[in-house]
Amino acid sequence: MSSITAGRVIPCKAAVAWEAGKPLVIEQVEVAPPQAMEVRVKIKYTSLCHTDLYFWEAKGQTPLFPRIFGHEAAGIVESIGEGVADLQVGDHVLPVFTGECKECAHCKSEESNMCDLLRINTDRGVMLSDGKSRFSINGNPINHFLGTSTFSEYTVIHTGCLAKIDRLAPLDKAAEGARIAGASRIIGVDLNPQRFDEAKKFGVTEFVNPKDHNRPVQEVIAEMTNGGVDRSVECTGNVNAMISAFECVHDGWGVAVLVGVPNKDAVFMTKPINLLNERTLKGTFFGNYKPRTDLPSVVDMYTRKELEVDKFITHRVPFSEINKAFDFMLNGEGLRCIISMEE
Amino acid sequence: MSSITAGRVIPCKAAVAWEAGKPLVIEQVEVAPPQAMEVRVKIKYTSLCHTDLYFWEAKGQTPLFPRIFGHEAAGIVESIGEGVADLQVGDHVLPVFTGECKECAHCKSEESNMCDLLRINTDRGVMLSDGKSRFSINGNPINHFLGTSTFSEYTVIHTGCLAKIDRLAPLDKAAEGARIAGASRIIGVDLNPQRFDEAKKFGVTEFVNPKDHNRPVQEVIAEMTNGGVDRSVECTGNVNAMISAFECVHDGWGVAVLVGVPNKDAVFMTKPINLLNERTLKGTFFGNYKPRTDLPSVVDMYTRKELEVDKFITHRVPFSEINKAFDFMLNGEGLRCIISMEE
Repeated sequence: MSSITAGRVIPCKAAVAWEAGKPLVIEQVEVAPPQAMEVRVKIKYTSLCHTDLYFWEAKGQTPLFPRIFGHEAAGIVESIGEGVADLQVGDHVLPVFTGECKECAHCKSEESNMCDLLRINTDRGVMLSDGKSRFSINGNPINHFLGTSTFSEYTVIHTGCLAKIDRLAPLDKAAEGARIAGASRIIGVDLNPQRFDEAKKFGVTEFVNPKDHNRPVQEVIAEMTNGGVDRSVECTGNVNAMISAFECVHDGWGVAVLVGVPNKDAVFMTKPINLLNERTLKGTFFGNYKPRTDLPSVVDMYTRKELEVDKFITHRVPFSEINKAFDFMLNGEGLRCIISMEE
Repeated sequence: MSSITAGRVIPCKAAVAWEAGKPLVIEQVEVAPPQAMEVRVKIKYTSLCHTDLYFWEAKGQTPLFPRIFGHEAAGIVESIGEGVADLQVGDHVLPVFTGECKECAHCKSEESNMCDLLRINTDRGVMLSDGKSRFSINGNPINHFLGTSTFSEYTVIHTGCLAKIDRLAPLDKAAEGARIAGASRIIGVDLNPQRFDEAKKFGVTEFVNPKDHNRPVQEVIAEMTNGGVDRSVECTGNVNAMISAFECVHDGWGVAVLVGVPNKDAVFMTKPINLLNERTLKGTFFGNYKPRTDLPSVVDMYTRKELEVDKFITHRVPFSEINKAFDFMLNGEGLRCIISMEE
């Protein structure tokens, strides 16, 4: 099975970021055919994540523009390059910003998902195989982002950065993921009180706004919980929030998990006795999921209604209005905005 | 069953530290009878640990002298105080510097050994029940240490700080403990090259002396191991060594365990990305053993020859020569010195 566009350049629409912090512009771009171990994907749905926003704002970074952002998406394989063995035209896929080559020590380890070959790289704007971009406008290359660049009707992705999913799974929901754990008390901590009502839907039972207290939030939480929480998760990447998240876990058994991506210059600091008192500090990357191996089963969970993804989706916009998704996020409104390529 | 000395003051010999850093003096002390929930123990063997040395040197601390040090030991119950239900006269016991009340949240948790009531307290020189010492010379109290003070022929210990062991276990060896794990390469890191030969007996296969390199030891180890070690254990309490131990574990799956007790003012610092790259940092206290619950089975392992304790014992001295044990340790000679009370 092969598509009529296979092997040809595809002209299509993409949302191009020409400059840091400036609204994206829907442009006509040319998408080159996939090279060895690459796959060209027709994107059906995508969404905006803080990571896109962070690199679009490009504060304190070496800016890399023009660029096509986007890394949360669902699509269908349009054509495959040489050597791609486990995907076929028509397969439903989720692009993943961190890949899985299945050959390196990390991929072979049961514990790691940090592939040596395809590990997240926010600085690279080209494809691995030849160091070139597959996007261009009038012959001028446009940079890729995270190897995914899903803010485009078509994109080219390394086969190791695509998870194949069941064709029956709804692609608009598959672009999202969620984790649900059982706990009697869940304390949400946020500087933005607007998020509190939204958070209740996800089972958060209590809220702490650090702005409401004139002492470290870890002290407030320790007091509320008779010594600290059992588990904490830090999602902002702010290093002071990381320290609070670690220091608010109970000694003896508490575990803090860092998820948010830190600033390069940030330094995590704590008194070693906080560790010696049997607290554990660990980081996770992509929820420790192996992207290709584990994601399909997450989608299956959604299909079996074991995972409530729908309530994460608070907004929907057509691709032509993608900048609205940026506005929602900048204003702290809602959670995820689904961007439909075909509306 | 009761002993003829029960309920009476026992005069006996103890090694008293009168001043920080000065040789101990074998003195005639009076040991009061055990009060409620306390047990008087006849010490058979004891040994010197760095923790004794650290508080004996008392550098940067509020000194608490005169004091009777010692916390690694084995002995026999001489008499028991009111309310002691699970020990009898004649039982073989190991004093433990951190206790287990079996009632608090920590004792009830399977994960913690940090008892709320009897957790290690290095500043306290008296017994919990009445805030008084059980040791005196001519009516003047001598401070306890860690609730154990085993550098004395008789000592008084809270029943929650005693682990009962099999009467058939050899008490000189029971005063020691060891952990053995399987690994293909074990890299020892020490500033003292004298330790390297000794360490080979314990399965250490390679050595790194940070003094031999003009770059951080974590870089040296990462190079030797193609990215880092799977597990690291830090035993010195030096905060820079802790940082090295953490940063030398492999991303994706590495776990660093801190054992050494840090200086109060020390601050652990690392870039958060080292955590986000799926490294885990945790501290342990007393090897996460619940002292009363778990220690007897460790002794059983030794008795069944599953634990090689003997090679830890590099020196033996009679109680009268206890200061030699301090000299061995100060000079970095050997590992453990067994001090026999009756020789």
